[in-house]
Amino acid sequence: MRLILVGFGTVGQGLAEILRDKAAELRAHYGFEAQIVGVATGQRGTLYHPGGLNIEQLLAVSQAHLDRYPDSLGLQRNLSIERLIREAQADVMVEASPSNLQTAQPALDYCYAALGSGKHVVMANKGPISIAYRELAQAARRGGRKLGFEATVMAGTPALRLALEALAGCRILQVKGILNGTTNYILTQMESGMEYGEALQQAQALGYAETDPTADVDGWDAAGKAVILANVLFGGQSDEHGTIAVRGIREITQADVQAAQAAGERWKLLVRVTPEGSIVKPVRLPLSDPLAQVGGAFNAVTYTTDLLGDVTLVGAGAGRLQTGFGLLADLLAVQRANP
Amino acid sequence: MRLILVGFGTVGQGLAEILRDKAAELRAHYGFEAQIVGVATGQRGTLYHPGGLNIEQLLAVSQAHLDRYPDSLGLQRNLSIERLIREAQADVMVEASPSNLQTAQPALDYCYAALGSGKHVVMANKGPISIAYRELAQAARRGGRKLGFEATVMAGTPALRLALEALAGCRILQVKGILNGTTNYILTQMESGMEYGEALQQAQALGYAETDPTADVDGWDAAGKAVILANVLFGGQSDEHGTIAVRGIREITQADVQAAQAAGERWKLLVRVTPEGSIVKPVRLPLSDPLAQVGGAFNAVTYTTDLLGDVTLVGAGAGRLQTGFGLLADLLAVQRANP
Repeated sequence: MRLILVGFGTVGQGLAEILRDKAAELRAHYGFEAQIVGVATGQRGTLYHPGGLNIEQLLAVSQAHLDRYPDSLGLQRNLSIERLIREAQADVMVEASPSNLQTAQPALDYCYAALGSGKHVVMANKGPISIAYRELAQAARRGGRKLGFEATVMAGTPALRLALEALAGCRILQVKGILNGTTNYILTQMESGMEYGEALQQAQALGYAETDPTADVDGWDAAGKAVILANVLFGGQSDEHGTIAVRGIREITQADVQAAQAAGERWKLLVRVTPEGSIVKPVRLPLSDPLAQVGGAFNAVTYTTDLLGDVTLVGAGAGRLQTGFGLLADLLAVQRANP
Repeated sequence: MRLILVGFGTVGQGLAEILRDKAAELRAHYGFEAQIVGVATGQRGTLYHPGGLNIEQLLAVSQAHLDRYPDSLGLQRNLSIERLIREAQADVMVEASPSNLQTAQPALDYCYAALGSGKHVVMANKGPISIAYRELAQAARRGGRKLGFEATVMAGTPALRLALEALAGCRILQVKGILNGTTNYILTQMESGMEYGEALQQAQALGYAETDPTADVDGWDAAGKAVILANVLFGGQSDEHGTIAVRGIREITQADVQAAQAAGERWKLLVRVTPEGSIVKPVRLPLSDPLAQVGGAFNAVTYTTDLLGDVTLVGAGAGRLQTGFGLLADLLAVQRANP
C-alpha cells in the first residue's frame, strides 16, 4: 500500500514511527505492507519518490525543512501539494494537517483531489468530516474508495469503529462523551484546589493545551467531534456545526467545583448528541455516572443503545502514537476492503 | 439465513424476540433476513420446519413443551438433536444451551456436528471456546465456516470484537476485567453495609445469581471467561482451564470491605489475563482505576495495548436482549463474510 502523508507534524510522524517499528508484525499478522511515497507539508516543502521514501531519514529531518532529506534517483522535491495528491502513484492519502473547523480547508479540497484521482482517504484532520461528511461519503462511494476517519474522535481509541461496526445491529439512541482531554485535565486539576488559570498553564506546560487555548476551553474542539458523531451516526446535516449549542469551561470557578464536590458530583465538559441535535456544555455528573470517573486527559464516550443499554468506552483522546494508530486502523480497514 | 437454535431458554428467546422485533430494521440497514428453521431443547423436545418456524408461536410456547407448537404441513417434531443439527437445511447453528465449563458437552459435539455438516456456528455457551478453541477454530477454518462467540464474554457488549477487530494493529499486552455481574453486585451491595449472605440472597431474588451460586461466587464463571480471552487473544492452550488460579469472593467479609473503603479502595473480583497465564481473585483497586468504578451487575474489561495504552469497555454482562444481541452481532458477521 503506497501512502502520501499530507501534514507531517506529530500525528504524521506518529504514523511513520508505527510503520517503521511494527513493519514485521503488521506483515506477519495482517499481511500489511505500506510504503510512504509522498510527504506534503504547508511550510516545509514536499517530497515524492514513486519507489518509496526512507522512513528513518524522513523522521530525522522532520523537525527541519524537508530539503534536508537526502537526494536520490527519482526523488522529486517541492511539487505543489495539489499536484502531488493528484499525480502521485499512490493508493491512499493520509490527511494529518491541522484541523480547520470553520472551513475545513485546504484539507477538504485535498480530500476531493485524492478521491478524484482514485485514492482512498484516511484522516486525522477533523475539518472535512465535520463540514462535509455527506458530500465526501458520496464522492467516495461513487469512486468505490474508502473514507477513514477513526482518528478524528478520541485519537485511535476506536470510538467510531465501536459504534459503526461492533455495535451494528443495535440502534444508537444517544451519545454522551468527554471528548476534549485538555478541558478534562483542567477540571480534574481544579478538583484538587487549583484555580482555572493555574490549571490551564499546567495543561499548556504539559503540551495538552495550545498557546491559544480557545478551541479547547471554549468547547469548539469538542463541538467539532460532536458534529462528526452526529454526521456519522445520525446522518446530521453538514451545516449542523453552525447550529450546535456550545459552552466551554472558562466560567467554571473553584467555588463551582467545590459546590459540585460537596454534592457528590463532578463538573465535566459533556458532549451530548442525539438524532434531534447536539450540545456541548459543562454539566455536573453524579459520581455513579461512568463518565464522572474519567479523569485527567482521558476521553470517554457512552452510547445508549436499544438492545444493550449503555456501552462506555474509555481511552486516550490524543497523543502521537495513539492518533497514529487511528490512522493505521483505517489503513488496515482499507486493505480488508481491497484484498 | 436459516438458523437452528440449540437451547431455547432466556438467551435463545432473546434472540428470537430481536429477530421478530427488528426484522424490518435489519433488512433495511444490513440486508439481513433470518428464519428460524429448527429449535432443539434438552427437555422440551425439538421442532424443525424447512420452510421456517413462526417466531410468535415459538415464543408463545417457550415456557411449556414444544409439543404445544401448532401443527403445520412439513413440520417435524422430536427429531433427535444430533439429527436435527446434521440434517437440517440450515446455514447456522446457534448454540445457546447452558454452559458446562468442565466438559463443554454436549455443546461441543453439537458444534462439531454443525461444522461437519457445513453450518456456521454462533454461540453464547461458554463451554466449547473455553475447552476446545483451537480444535474448533481449526475445524471451522478447514470447512470455510465461521465461528462466532461474542456472546460468551460480557453478553453482547462487544468485548471480543473490540479486541479482535477494532484494536487490530495494536498488540494487547494484558487484559483485566470484571466479568461476573453477580459477584460485582454482591460486592457493591456490601459497600453499603450489607453482609455477604444478605447480598447473595438479594442477588438471587433479582435473578442475578443461581439457586446454587457456586459458579459465580467461587469464580468459575469468571475463570471460564478468562480462559476464553486467553485462548482467543493469546492462543492459550485448551487445557489452561485446569491450571488457572481461581479464588472467589466467599471469604470477603464486611470488615474487609470497610478496610478497603477506609483506604480509598474497593474490592473487585478481578480477572487478569496475560500471555504468561491467567488469574481470578478478589483484589483491592484504587478508586482511580476505571474498573473500581464499575458497580452493580455491570461488567468491564481493560485492554492494555502497546500503541493506545489502556482501553476500557464498560457495559452489560448478562441479560436476555443483551446476550441475544451478541448472537445477532455474530450472525451479521457471518453474513458480511458470506455476502
